[in-house]
Order: sequence, then C-alpha cells, then structure tokens
Amino acid sequence: MIVDHLKPPYYAVIFTTIVTDTLEGYAETAERMEELAKQQKGYLGIESARAEIGITVSYWKSLEAIVEWKNNVEHTEARNLGREQWYKKYQLRICKVEREYGFEQ
Amino acid sequence: MIVDHLKPPYYAVIFTTIVTDTLEGYAETAERMEELAKQQKGYLGIESARAEIGITVSYWKSLEAIVEWKNNVEHTEARNLGREQWYKKYQLRICKVEREYGFEQ
Repeated sequence: MIVDHLKPPYYAVIFTTIVTDTLEGYAETAERMEELAKQQKGYLGIESARAEIGITVSYWKSLEAIVEWKNNVEHTEARNLGREQWYKKYQLRICKVEREYGFEQ
Repeated sequence: MIVDHLKPPYYAVIFTTIVTDTLEGYAETAERMEELAKQQKGYLGIESARAEIGITVSYWKSLEAIVEWKNNVEHTEARNLGREQWYKKYQLRICKVEREYGFEQ
C-alpha cells in the first residue's frame, strides 16, 4: 500500500535488498517485523515492493523512533539472520523527508 | 540495481505509484525517463521495483538538481501523461539522506 500524505518533516528509512536463494523463514519474519514495527512509538507507515531488487521504505516521526526500532531485540535478531542467510546485499539509508506531493485520480 | 554507497548528505526522491490498466507507452516512457535522468547534472543513481505498488527512488546531489530535472521539458510532458493515463495514485517525497549503511556477503 501507498502511505498517504504525512506532514513533513519526518523520517524515511529506505532499505534496498538483493536476496539469496536460501529464503527459509524470510517471508514469515518480514511479516512479523512489519507487525512489530507498527507497534513502535513514532511509526508512520511502510511501503514495499520486490522485483529484481526489493525496496522497503518505512516512515517515522523522528530519528529517536528509528533508533528505538533498531534496538528492538526481536528486530536485532531478525537483522542478524538477514545478514547470515537472506541478504546477498543491502543498502540502508536514513532520510529526512522535507516535502511531499500526492496525486489521486 | 542497488545504488552503492554514496556520501551523505545528498537527496532522494521516493516515488510510490499505483498504475491504471491503460499502460500503453508506459514502459517505453519509463525507460526513456531513466535514460534522460542519467544525463542530468547532479544525478547519482536510481533504484526501482514494482509488485502491488511501484517504488522508484532516484538519488541527487542537491535540491537544485531535482528542480532542474523537474523542469526538463520531456520529463514534464511525461508527468502530464502519467497523471492523465498511467497513474491511479502516487506519492512523491523529497528527502535529505543523512546516513547510510551497506552490507554485501
């Protein structure tokens, strides 16, 4: 789903990934992480698409909210599994959203 | 493709879309826009994935580079076609990338 208009400034985490061939447990964990993220303080929304590469963008009220989510124990364990098994390569970018524009037919 | 490490601060444009069923000319135009963007001053890279929704993230040296790309005539025509024919809905976010982390097996 597209995350509808939010009021800048707020933060985005752009997580771009290439996965391996050993994806046991990956889908379940990704789903669980989305569920957990939604319970975090300062969570604003998430957008995700996968084709040749995967792009997941999560939106947060503040940098503090992102750090708290990073420090979540279950999330830390999932990240370790990700590096050990699921991700061939990833890039993670932390951004401040300064402006936004929407369109709907 | 994943855009490899760039040196913050720089800018990201997160373009999230839901397309219509009338996609005549869409793929060609998307490809042409990517080609054109690469020729723009201040262009750093592009990442793209489409599943239920499409997410395209383009990276730029500065806000000025993003404004110049926005004002490109062919790009403006493509955006108009996009709103008339191809996009049911989109959200566009302009962000300053403050930090980034990479991983590769």
